[in-house]
Parts: sequence; C-alpha cells; structure tokens
Amino acid sequence: MSAPAKILVIHGPNLQLLGTREPKIYGKTTLEEVNQKLSEAAAPLKVTLDFFQSNHEGEMVEKIGTARKEYEGILMNPAAYTHTSVAIRDAVEASGLPTVEVHLSNIYAREEFRRNSLIAPVAIGQISGFGALSYVLGLTALVDRIRSAR
Amino acid sequence: MSAPAKILVIHGPNLQLLGTREPKIYGKTTLEEVNQKLSEAAAPLKVTLDFFQSNHEGEMVEKIGTARKEYEGILMNPAAYTHTSVAIRDAVEASGLPTVEVHLSNIYAREEFRRNSLIAPVAIGQISGFGALSYVLGLTALVDRIRSAR
Amino acid sequence: MSAPAKILVIHGPNLQLLGTREPKIYGKTTLEEVNQKLSEAAAPLKVTLDFFQSNHEGEMVEKIGTARKEYEGILMNPAAYTHTSVAIRDAVEASGLPTVEVHLSNIYAREEFRRNSLIAPVAIGQISGFGALSYVLGLTALVDRIRSAR
Amino acid sequence: MSAPAKILVIHGPNLQLLGTREPKIYGKTTLEEVNQKLSEAAAPLKVTLDFFQSNHEGEMVEKIGTARKEYEGILMNPAAYTHTSVAIRDAVEASGLPTVEVHLSNIYAREEFRRNSLIAPVAIGQISGFGALSYVLGLTALVDRIRSAR
Amino acid sequence: MSAPAKILVIHGPNLQLLGTREPKIYGKTTLEEVNQKLSEAAAPLKVTLDFFQSNHEGEMVEKIGTARKEYEGILMNPAAYTHTSVAIRDAVEASGLPTVEVHLSNIYAREEFRRNSLIAPVAIGQISGFGALSYVLGLTALVDRIRSAR
Amino acid sequence: MSAPAKILVIHGPNLQLLGTREPKIYGKTTLEEVNQKLSEAAAPLKVTLDFFQSNHEGEMVEKIGTARKEYEGILMNPAAYTHTSVAIRDAVEASGLPTVEVHLSNIYAREEFRRNSLIAPVAIGQISGFGALSYVLGLTALVDRIRSAR
Amino acid sequence: MSAPAKILVIHGPNLQLLGTREPKIYGKTTLEEVNQKLSEAAAPLKVTLDFFQSNHEGEMVEKIGTARKEYEGILMNPAAYTHTSVAIRDAVEASGLPTVEVHLSNIYAREEFRRNSLIAPVAIGQISGFGALSYVLGLTALVDRIRSAR
Amino acid sequence: MSAPAKILVIHGPNLQLLGTREPKIYGKTTLEEVNQKLSEAAAPLKVTLDFFQSNHEGEMVEKIGTARKEYEGILMNPAAYTHTSVAIRDAVEASGLPTVEVHLSNIYAREEFRRNSLIAPVAIGQISGFGALSYVLGLTALVDRIRSAR
Amino acid sequence: MSAPAKILVIHGPNLQLLGTREPKIYGKTTLEEVNQKLSEAAAPLKVTLDFFQSNHEGEMVEKIGTARKEYEGILMNPAAYTHTSVAIRDAVEASGLPTVEVHLSNIYAREEFRRNSLIAPVAIGQISGFGALSYVLGLTALVDRIRSAR
Amino acid sequence: MSAPAKILVIHGPNLQLLGTREPKIYGKTTLEEVNQKLSEAAAPLKVTLDFFQSNHEGEMVEKIGTARKEYEGILMNPAAYTHTSVAIRDAVEASGLPTVEVHLSNIYAREEFRRNSLIAPVAIGQISGFGALSYVLGLTALVDRIRSAR
Amino acid sequence: MSAPAKILVIHGPNLQLLGTREPKIYGKTTLEEVNQKLSEAAAPLKVTLDFFQSNHEGEMVEKIGTARKEYEGILMNPAAYTHTSVAIRDAVEASGLPTVEVHLSNIYAREEFRRNSLIAPVAIGQISGFGALSYVLGLTALVDRIRSAR
Amino acid sequence: MSAPAKILVIHGPNLQLLGTREPKIYGKTTLEEVNQKLSEAAAPLKVTLDFFQSNHEGEMVEKIGTARKEYEGILMNPAAYTHTSVAIRDAVEASGLPTVEVHLSNIYAREEFRRNSLIAPVAIGQISGFGALSYVLGLTALVDRIRSAR
Repeated sequence: MSAPAKILVIHGPNLQLLGTREPKIYGKTTLEEVNQKLSEAAAPLKVTLDFFQSNHEGEMVEKIGTARKEYEGILMNPAAYTHTSVAIRDAVEASGLPTVEVHLSNIYAREEFRRNSLIAPVAIGQISGFGALSYVLGLTALVDRIRSAR
Repeated sequence: MSAPAKILVIHGPNLQLLGTREPKIYGKTTLEEVNQKLSEAAAPLKVTLDFFQSNHEGEMVEKIGTARKEYEGILMNPAAYTHTSVAIRDAVEASGLPTVEVHLSNIYAREEFRRNSLIAPVAIGQISGFGALSYVLGLTALVDRIRSAR
Repeated sequence: MSAPAKILVIHGPNLQLLGTREPKIYGKTTLEEVNQKLSEAAAPLKVTLDFFQSNHEGEMVEKIGTARKEYEGILMNPAAYTHTSVAIRDAVEASGLPTVEVHLSNIYAREEFRRNSLIAPVAIGQISGFGALSYVLGLTALVDRIRSAR
Repeated sequence: MSAPAKILVIHGPNLQLLGTREPKIYGKTTLEEVNQKLSEAAAPLKVTLDFFQSNHEGEMVEKIGTARKEYEGILMNPAAYTHTSVAIRDAVEASGLPTVEVHLSNIYAREEFRRNSLIAPVAIGQISGFGALSYVLGLTALVDRIRSAR
Repeated sequence: MSAPAKILVIHGPNLQLLGTREPKIYGKTTLEEVNQKLSEAAAPLKVTLDFFQSNHEGEMVEKIGTARKEYEGILMNPAAYTHTSVAIRDAVEASGLPTVEVHLSNIYAREEFRRNSLIAPVAIGQISGFGALSYVLGLTALVDRIRSAR
Repeated sequence: MSAPAKILVIHGPNLQLLGTREPKIYGKTTLEEVNQKLSEAAAPLKVTLDFFQSNHEGEMVEKIGTARKEYEGILMNPAAYTHTSVAIRDAVEASGLPTVEVHLSNIYAREEFRRNSLIAPVAIGQISGFGALSYVLGLTALVDRIRSAR
Repeated sequence: MSAPAKILVIHGPNLQLLGTREPKIYGKTTLEEVNQKLSEAAAPLKVTLDFFQSNHEGEMVEKIGTARKEYEGILMNPAAYTHTSVAIRDAVEASGLPTVEVHLSNIYAREEFRRNSLIAPVAIGQISGFGALSYVLGLTALVDRIRSAR
Repeated sequence: MSAPAKILVIHGPNLQLLGTREPKIYGKTTLEEVNQKLSEAAAPLKVTLDFFQSNHEGEMVEKIGTARKEYEGILMNPAAYTHTSVAIRDAVEASGLPTVEVHLSNIYAREEFRRNSLIAPVAIGQISGFGALSYVLGLTALVDRIRSAR
Repeated sequence: MSAPAKILVIHGPNLQLLGTREPKIYGKTTLEEVNQKLSEAAAPLKVTLDFFQSNHEGEMVEKIGTARKEYEGILMNPAAYTHTSVAIRDAVEASGLPTVEVHLSNIYAREEFRRNSLIAPVAIGQISGFGALSYVLGLTALVDRIRSAR
Repeated sequence: MSAPAKILVIHGPNLQLLGTREPKIYGKTTLEEVNQKLSEAAAPLKVTLDFFQSNHEGEMVEKIGTARKEYEGILMNPAAYTHTSVAIRDAVEASGLPTVEVHLSNIYAREEFRRNSLIAPVAIGQISGFGALSYVLGLTALVDRIRSAR
Repeated sequence: MSAPAKILVIHGPNLQLLGTREPKIYGKTTLEEVNQKLSEAAAPLKVTLDFFQSNHEGEMVEKIGTARKEYEGILMNPAAYTHTSVAIRDAVEASGLPTVEVHLSNIYAREEFRRNSLIAPVAIGQISGFGALSYVLGLTALVDRIRSAR
Repeated sequence: MSAPAKILVIHGPNLQLLGTREPKIYGKTTLEEVNQKLSEAAAPLKVTLDFFQSNHEGEMVEKIGTARKEYEGILMNPAAYTHTSVAIRDAVEASGLPTVEVHLSNIYAREEFRRNSLIAPVAIGQISGFGALSYVLGLTALVDRIRSAR
C-alpha cells in the first residue's frame, strides 16, 4: 500500500472571485467550496492537498518552482494565464511534476483567444467545461498517474 | 431518486485497434477493456451504457441523429474526426443531447492539426490525456450534468 | 418541345432530421415536405426528380459518380460536407453534370468555417438562406440551364 | 389578400454596361432586359418594382437609407461593392428591410477576392451564378419572405 | 487671448439616419441633436463649427481637401469609411490639419473588421464608445491641441 | 441630485516614470500632475477619485477584483498590459464596473502590436492620443455613463 | 501613317491637391503642370489627350465605362483607389481599353497596404516612383501599345 | 531468396470513374487497366497484389486497419482524401506497414488545396504526376523497401 | 524504333557530399553510386545520360538554359533550391523540356519549409522519399513521357 | 551642360534566353535587340551604357558592389531574383546609386509569388509590363533622376 | 582612464532553478555560478555588477525603471518574458540604458513561439545559445558599448 | 593542453564593402580590420583562422562542404543569405561542425524579413548587434564549445 501523496492545487487569477463573478460562465460555487469538494474527494484517494491562489504570474512561477521538493503532482487552473504565460509553462516543465490543467468553463466555446493553451503541451492532460467537477476529475486523473508511475 | 439514464458511448475511427496501435501514444488497453472499465464505472452511477464504434463519419452522424429518442447523453471520442468533421458537429448540435468529448492522448502535445476540435464548441466539455481514464472521468461528468439538469 | 429532364436531388448529412433539428436556423419544414414542394415545382417545369439523402460522404460520391448515365442535372444541399469534402467536389466535376448548390440557412451569417464552400467553384451557382424555397429556386435555375444548353 | 408590396431593385457599379461588358462572364442580356424580366416576374407576384442603378457607393447608401419609408424589401446586386463596402452593409442593416443579394456570375468560381461578401451576413440570403435569372429568383425569395412575415 | 478657431465637423456615411438606425448600438440621439450638443460645447471653448454630413467617400475627400484654407482642425466620425478608405486617410494627411477621429459605438466590441482604422494612424487620436459624448470630448481634445500648438 | 460617485483611477506599468520617459511619445507631464489634473476635473463632476499605480499585472487584477465594493467605475490606462493581459480583461469583466480605457499616446500610430487591445472589448470605450487630457476626457465619459445609468 | 489616337488621362482622389500636398512624397509639381507636361509629350506622339480628375470612385467608374466609345486607351493614376477599388478594376476590364497605371511616388517604399494594387492585374503595366515623369513614360508606353496593336 | 510479399493496393474516391473522368487531368486509362498494369509489374517483382477501391473514408480506414495481418505493404492513391483525412493518416500510422502514396496527376500543378497531403508525412514517399505509371513506380519502390528491410 | 534520347541529370547543392552527409536522412549511397545506378538503368531504356552537379543556383540556371539544344529531358534533384529558387523554375519553364523532380528523402516528413516546391508546378511530376531509387524511378517516368510524346 | 553619365544595365537570370523563352509572356525580342534599343535611346540622352547579364545572384551582387566607382546609376531587370534576393537588395542599398527596376512582363498579372519585389523598396521606382520598352522608359527615368540630382 | 561602470544584471523567471531545471537545455551551472563567472569577468573589465533575479514581470519593470539613476547598462536574460512582455520592453526603452539580451539556450532551435523576442528590437543586441558564456559575452559587449559611447 | 584548433571564418554577401556601406547600420570598420581583430583575438585562444568572403551562395555551400576535413568549427556571418538560403543551412548541418552565426547589426531592430534566420536553428548560437565585436565574441564562444567537447 502506497503512502499518501501530497498535491498542490493552484488557482490562477480572478479565481478568488469565484461564485460572484459572471455566474453564467463560471457557476455559483465559491473557491472555498471548490476546495472543500476537493478535500472531500482527496480523502478516499488518500492524498493530502495544499491550496494556493494567486493573481500574480510571478507567484505562480515561484510556487511551482519550489513544488518539487514537497509535492508529487500539481492540479492547476491557470485561468487567464493559460493563454499568455510562457513563464508558468516553463515552471511546470522545470518542475518535472505531473500536472493536470483544469478549467471551469468550456474554453473552446468562448472567445477565439481562449482556445490556445500554452500550458497543455507540458501537462499530462486537460479537463475543461465541468465547473467545480473539473477539479475533482482532474484530481482523480492526477492521483491515478502518480500511483501508476510509482 | 432518479431513474437510470441511458448513455451512448461512441468510439471514432481506428479505435477498434486500441491496445495494438502505437502503444506509446495510446496505451495498451484494448477497446473492450475500455468498455469494461466504463461498465464498471456505470454501475455505481446508476446509468446503463450502449457502445458504438465506427470508422465511418456517416455512421457516427446517423447514430447521433437517432440518439435523442433513446439516450440522455453522449460520451464520445471522435478520434480523427475531431479535427475534420463538421457533419458530426452538426449532428451533436442537432441532437440537443449533452455530449462530453474525450481523448486518450493529450491532443495538445501532438501535431499542430490535432489542437483544433470542431466538436468541442458544441460539447459540454472536453477531457484529454488520461488514457482509458479519460472515458471514465467523462462519464462521471456527463452523468453529473444529466442529473443536475433534471 | 423538349423531353422531360430527369434530375437528381441530393440531401447531405443530418438533413434527415430536418424540421426537428434547430428550427431557429433550419425552420420547421421536414425533408419530406421539402421533397413534396420540389415535386410540385417539378411538374410545371416538366422534369422528374429522384431524391437521395445520405449522411455518408462516400455514398454521395458514388451516387454522383453514377448520375451521368441517368440524370441531366444535380440539385444538391451538401450540408456539412460543403465545407470539408474534396471528394464530393471531385465527383461533381467528374460527372460533368450541371449542379446547383443550395442551403437552407444563410451560410454567410453563421460560423466563420461555414463561409467556405469547396463545392461552389465547380457548381453553376449557389443559393443560400431561403429555407425550403432555396431548393425550389435552385431547381428552377438548374432546369433553365439544362434547357438553354440543349 | 395582401396589398402589393413595393420593392427596390438596386444595381451596383458597372452594371449599366451589362450585355456589352465581358459577355463570357456576364452574358449578353442588357440591364434593361434584366429589368424587363423582373417586371414580368413581378406582375404575378403582385409586387411593384422601382429600379435604381448607381456606380456610386454613396448614392447606394443614400438610396437604401431612404428606402424604409417607401419599400418593403430590397433586391440588390452590389457588384464590386459586395467585396469592399462596409457603408452599404451598414445601410442595409440600418434600413431594417429584408434584402436579397444576387450576382449574375458565380462569384465563387472567380478571383479569390470575390469570394468574400460584406453584404451577405446582413442579407436574408444570396443567389449567385444564374445570370439574369439570379434576379428573378431573388425577387421570388424576397416576396416570399415579405409575405410570410406579414 | 486667442481668436476663435473654426472647426470642421464631418459625419460619415449613414449618420444622417442617427437616432433611428439600430438604437441599441448607436443610441436615440439624432444627428441634429449631436450637432446641437457640439454647438453648445463650442461656445465656452470659443470655437465656431461647420457641420458636414456625407455618404460619399469622394465628397468627404473633397471637403477635407479644401478644409485647410478655412479651418484649423477637423472633428470626424468616418463611420464605415474608417475601415475601408485610403482616400480619406490621404486627404487627412494632405490637409495637414489636426484631426480627431470619433465613434459613437465602441468599435472594438463589434465585428472583427471594425477593429481596424485606416484613419487613426494619421489622426491625433481616437475616441470611441461614448455616443454623442464622443464628439464633445473629441472637440475638447481638438481645441486643446490647436490652442497648445499656437 | 445624485451622491458623489467614487472612482478608481488605475495607471499601468511604467507610468510611474511619466514625464521623464520618452517625452516625444508621452509628453512631459508627470503622473502626479496627471492625477492633479484629474482631481481638478473631478471636483465639478462631483466625484471623488482614488489613484493606483502598479507595474504588476497581478496587483492590477487584485485591485480591480476588490473595486466593486467601493467604486462605481474604473478609469484605467493599462499601458503595456493593454496588449497582453487576459487576466486584467477578465478582472474588468468580473467586476461588472463601467470601465474607460485611456492612452496618452495614439496607440494606432505606433508599432503594429500596440494596435490590439485585449481590454477594449470589455470597456465602455477607449480614448487614445491626447496626453494627460485623455484621462480627463475619460473621466468625463465615465461619470456621464455612471450618472445616466442610475 | 496612323491617325491620332485619343487618350483619356484619369487622376484619382486627392490629386487635385498636387504640389501642395506632402511635397516630400509627391513633389512640387501641380496637377496642371503634370497635364501641361503630358500635352507637350502628346504632340510628337501624335495623340490627343482629355484630362479627368475625380475624388469619386463612382465618377471614375462612369468615366471609364463611357471611355470605349471615344478613346483608344487610358492613362490612370488611381491614387488611393489603387488599393481599395474593385469597381474601378471591373470598369477597366469591362472597357477593354489598354490601360497604363502610374504612380508619382514609389508605392513599394511606403506603407504595407500600398503594396497591393487591385488595378495592376488588369492593366498593361505599371510605372511608379518617378513623379510627373511617371505619367509621361506611361503615355509613351500606352501609345506604343495602341500603335503596335493596330 | 525471399518469399513473395503480399501487397494491398488501395484506390480512393472517384477512381472507379478512371478513364472517363476528366481525361485531360487523369488520362484515358481505366482503373481496371491500371490494375492490369500493376499485376504485370508485380510478376517479375515476385509479389502478389490485392486491389481495393472505395469512395468511403471509413472503408479505407477499416481496410488499412486489418491490413497488417495479411500484407507487407500498402500502395495507395488516397485521391481526394489525401487532403482531408486525418482518419486515413491515423490508420496508416497505426498499421505500421510501409506505405507509398501515389497520384495520377501532378497535384502540385493544380488548385492550392491539393498541395497539402495529410498522408505523405506518414508514408515512405510520394509519387505524383505520371498517370498509371505512378502506381507501377510506387509498387517498385514499395517492394524495394520491403525487401531491404527484411 | 526510336533513337536513344539524351537526358540531363542535375544534382543540386550539397549532393556532392552524398553518402557522408546525414546518413540517417539521405542514406549511405554516394553520388557516384547514384550515377552508376542511373547508368545501369539507362541502358535497357536506351537513353544516354549526362551528369551535372552544382552548388550554384546560377550554374543550374545556365545548364538548364542550354539544355534544350542537346537533351530531350531533365531529371533533377534541386535539393535546397527546390524551396527557394524562382530562377531555376523559370529556367525549367523556359527550356520547354519535360522535367522530373526527385528527392532522396521524403520532404513531406521533415521541416515545414521543405513542404513547398517552387519547381513541382512546372515539372511533369515529383518523386520523393526512396533514396537513390527515387532517381531511377524518375528516369523511368521521364523516358516514358519522352517516348509517348514522340 | 552636364557630362555624359555612365550607366550600368543589369539583366538577371534566364534573360540570356530572351526571344526564345516563352514568347507569349516575354515577347520575341532578343536580349541583344533590347541592348540595341537601349543604346539607341542612350545617344540622345547623352549617356553611355555598359551591359551585364548574369544568372548568378553572387555575380550580380559583386557587379553592383563595384558599380559605385564607375557608374552614376543602375538600370536593372532582376528577373527571378526580384522575388528572392535579399543579397541584391543589400547590394543596391549599399551602392548608394539610383536604381530603376524594370520588368518585361506585368509581374502583377502572373503568379502570386511574383507580386512581391524585394528590390523595389530600395529602388527609385519600378516599371513593369511593356516588354523591351520597359527598359527604355526606365533609362529615361534614371537619367532624369541623375540629371536632376546634380 | 574611465571610472568603473556599474551594471545591472537581471535574470528572468525560473532562472532561480538553473542547474537543476532541464539540464539538457540549460546546462548544469547554477545561477550562483553564473553570477560568479560574471563577477570574475567584470574585474578585468573594471565594472561592478549588481545581480537581480525575479519571477515577476512587474518587479523587473520596476527594477529597470529605477536603474537609470544607478547603472550605466543592463545585462538581461528575460527568459520566458522575452516572448510575452511589452511592459519590460517599454521599461527598457524608457530607461534609455544600453541593454544586452542574453539567452542560455539557442532560442531559435526550440519551439516556434520562442523565436520572437519583444525585447530585442529595443536592445543593443542579442546573444543566445552559449550557456553561461552567453552572459559573459554579453557583459563584454555591453561594457564595450558603454566605453565607446562615453 | 590542447592542440590549436583551426577555424573557418566565413563572411557572406556584400561584406567585402564593409566600412563603406551604410556606416550608420554597419559601422566604419572594414572587413580587413574585422579579420585583423579576429586574428588578435585568436592568438590568446590558441586557434588559427582562415578567412573566406563570398557573395555566392554556391561558393559558401562548397566551402562549408569541404570544411570538415580541415576545420574544427565555423564562425559565419551569412549576411543576406541568413534569411533566404536553405542550401547554406543544409551545408552547415551536413558539415557536422559547430557553427556560430554572427551579425554586425541588430537584425531584430530592422525590416521584418530580417528577423527570420534559416541558419540559427542548426547553429550553436547566434550573436547580433555588436559590430565587429560580434565576431570576436562569436569566436570566443566557438572555441569554448570546441574545447569543452573534446
């Protein structure tokens, strides 16, 4: 039986507003509730989670840069930085950690510029369109990958 | 308590070869094993599944065209047709059924032409990169959507 | 006085759903009713019509491939294949038959990818945006061309 | 029974030369003969027509700008301005009148720059490739729309 | 104390319809009312205004071509010609007069082709999105520039 | 009579250098002087202003994220982030606050990459090219919108 | 020995300003002086010239449309309409008259959008960059073509 | 001495019409005659051939999907599907069989869209422009590769 | 019975290095061995060959320019100049000689810029991907064309 | 009165074939005859000419590189190198000599890739479409510029 | 003899990880060792160095914004921000300081998006591909420029 | 201690003019002086240099083609061929020699077409913008690479 993996959950810019911001697109669940759901999902998966929200590309880069020492994987919703941040992409690649990219909304059904993810090519995979459930599914996928790679 | 939803699982072109075809990209699981995993996941979700594999764009169009009468949702890996079929997109849109698009491989880490999905804009969401698990997660998401919409 | 021309009417993918599928875009007339209207319009024009609907690019290619022996012209709504099928374009060109392309909806007022027709450059002309009437007008134009070319 | 609708027929630049200009592309019918054909077609449709030809983008804009008071629809061959005039597009949109765009030649079988119509997205529909008959078919379509909208 | 500057106000195509045309986009103020507001704003600024509306690119070119003799600046809403007229751009550049470009609607929140202004690179600046107020602000900016350049 | 609105003025990256940096493009006025002019303009408009300058995309995102509680509108010069920040765009959209985008220089008369604003489509409008006056005009426009929306 | 050919010289928009407008780009020669030079060059070539300047695309279209009856060739500086007018291109093509396109400035050494001529593909040839001399050379070329085609 | 290799020859859409369809482009040889020539060429090469023609992308996908069990190489003229079928490309790649792509006409001397082959990057090589001989040369190349790889 | 045709074989830049340069891409056969193989293939075809290798675009242009007098066809591997030389294309077109373009490697499976051939549109056909055999097959095709055209 | 200027006439690749190569496009005049015509035109202009033809980009670069010492201007038909040679462009710019670019054919009425000239932006001007006369006109323009600059 | 110049060395995002992150691309040297090498190189050049690493675009903007007071030049590896930061570009331009851009890896041999540098056009020059040596060479170049400009 | 490496220095087209050609861009140093500086720099590095300048793409290809036998590295300023020569790129790749690309001017601060280097992806690295010093730095980098690879 394997030891509990520690996973870093990163929420990108504007996600602190979740639940209030454009509920038509992002739903009514708050970020705290998302984290709560994740925690509930983590228990049976036997992993522990740390949560990190930032509106700063640089902070996200730094958090990922130090993640390797402490975590076995990253679950990240890069939000707006998905489409513009080479720095976060480089950080993910440098970390060597399995990373799952998730999105609350279906980014392929929105503005043209949201269809391109700079992060996806260096992630294991991407899940978009299922609201808070995107995170929970992403966590499942990440843990599965971590376990199968051991 | 809700009645069991019936869900149509569609596998696109070349997926009949799964497990033998380019295992580096698509893994060693066969299509039958994928379906088996899906069936196992369906039981606790209280949904029943029908499986359909086709290499024919036209057959996929027809299957989706008749799906509305019998199914409450579609779980589909459109494979190569993801990138080229307006007809399947139109069929999905016409069906009015909630549809989840899944991919075994991370389509964003491959050739440039695989980064564009004609289906995604008319689906609920998309999951790519987790092998057979992509299907299982997609089923979870689809059932969640069907249940919450009732 | 000229003998009655025989004309092949081809309906492309998803058109079997007409009347039920997205009535906002395609109207409430069923495919049968479209054919009925065409038959009524054919009588005074002294032409006879054969109807063919297919969701298969290949079947459409084959039907067109054999059309030359039996028909003097083709009236076709290639639907989704308008934008993606080089094979149907080649079949039309190979048939040498005058072909009129029709569309129920105004394809120029929809998604960007619907603005490009691979078929139009090898057709006599194109009519789009008038619902079932597009077919009737197309038939008139086709017969006019056939008659004037005799 | 409905009152006769009054319809404005607009011919764009260079159409005053019809019948003499490049007969291979545009045929031998003169503009007067086109109008004559339209008048004949108008009678059984119980509509009256006013004809307007201009080589001036600005005059076309103005004519359309005042059309709402007097006409129930516009039948227009914008000719070269099809591809370059945002002003005529704006005028059509501002008029709120149902407008049908027609072309003598098949604009999709000519130079690349003729494939893009700025007008089509704000018209009901478009007919191209049938010579003078394009106008007659367009009139039929326009009257049909006006009648069905009453 | 400086002498009153004389300023030419130019309204481009379709602006004669203002107040009636698509009020959702352009508001309910008529062109006369816009001019009235401008006149009121001109008084305290100690400038006099001449108004000119045209649907003709050529007339606008000519008006600008003669403006240098009489005016010290141009306030212009080129409307649709913003996006298509090299001739007006050349006229502005040739006039050597400080020119402010204004738009009633936010042209950056509309169709893609409205995002490009051929005029802006030769104007002092551009104001878009504030309805009739765009003109008043533009007048203020223009007068400021004229005064500061004396 | 309406209560004084509170407005947030945001200055983007490098604007702390105003007056010293490339005076040919940006003029000699310092940021403090811009703020001073804005304060003077605010008095008769009966609004109060808070000033915020940041070189950090993340700080701007956060400031906008909390603005809804305290302010009725945002006056912002996003400077370089105009062209690169999806995060600030999302923050503006999420805030629901009327926002006016201003630029000191005429961004359409500079490098090609400065012609595209990610912010403009979610702002009320945009003013560019009038130096410090751009801000004052923007404030006027913003207050007008806030007042008229009450 | 051949009879004197009659040639139509067309000057496009803003050329009425020649000699005053941006002398760095267009030189100091006025349009009258250009015409004078052309007249002097016409004498030994035994051709007579008619001059026509217009700022109106529509007038240019009309002038060209009637030119066939009276002239044997067209010498034209389409100025700004070079880059935007499909209507003038169509008029030239419809006229069937040999046409030479001339430009005062070197259009290939200016803004990117001036590098594309819609007229050149239907002209005999193009001369750009030699000031008033461009016209004189163009006249020589045009007469040579007319003479050799007789 | 090596055993006779078995090779699958695949003819794509519209090739059943060969010899009748556009002889200027494709020549007068029928598909049967092509196969006859291939059989004659196969004898001295000591390979046996199976022929397969289909207008259906899906059938081609399936045929290729099962080819690995029975054949040592594929000689294919994908015709129109060359330019549009990701599914056939995937099938070829999945088969792991050496594949030679042939074309009757020189696809690089035709319409722009025929210049791109989705298949070529996963084939050994490509031969285009030599009519029926393209096939015979392709067979030679394929057998050479199969033999040298043994 | 036809007289022996004389054929010019042209090897483009860097091909003098064949056999040593990047054997993974180009194989181990030297240029001399390629020529030897060609000579052996030429005998039964009853043609004689001249070989020419050059790294100079200009020399290739000149060789092709004088080829018409002496040769009945050209077999050419333009190597790097395939993608960049309009001059060689013009020379081939000017020569009026049937030309076959060959490549050792599959140019469609390499860098993007190698997918475009400036030569192919003026050649009879193109063969790529079969190493030295590409030349031999090309010779066969060329002779076939020369013989059938006699 | 000015001393006779010495002018370098450069003919680019394939022009040695003039008169034999594709007479439909380039006419029947040989290069010698072009030079003869130029010499005749040079006499009354009181300039002397040196002729240089090369198929080598490098030779053209070198010739231009040494031209400054001996010549006062360059008359050049860069032929195919017009569209591909940055090196010749750099040589022209480095020479500091006034250069006129001429073309026999109308390069704007041919293939798309011939519409772009790398040389034109560094030349005085360009003349295309008038056969050998293009050179004579170009000489006139060049001498005029040299004289007026003295 | 000149006084020692003070130079600011800026390391962009993720460079704190140097030596551990993807050693195949970036080598095994740590950032400290790079700085050490730079210090050693600075001594004989008689310049002093300050080192600054940041993952924050905004911090880099600020550091550069204040650099003018203290430093005579900037040596910067903008890392990921090379490709995305207009703000850093603006800061460099505003600083007026000579700036040298360096990269450890050869950015032209990596992903397409790394080929574009927003910084290079405002830098003196760029050095990429030589690992830690890129910095040392960059320092040499920067000092040379500073010395020669004095 | 290592034996002296022999290095080939290649100067591309127009560099023979150095010091006279556009000194604003390229400086006043002559090519001889550049070589002199290089020789001085070579001594302490214990390498010997051979210099080669050519305006001929083909000569450069040939020189590089034979370099492997004699040299351990190449220092090259491909000048204009940087942007257009696939042949030189292929030669560099074929040589297998470590190659450093240098430029006198900052190619990223000039015309758009100079921003793309065909050579850089196959070089070790690139240095641009430092005049003659670019070469000296490039030599240092090249020697470092050669030494460290031994």
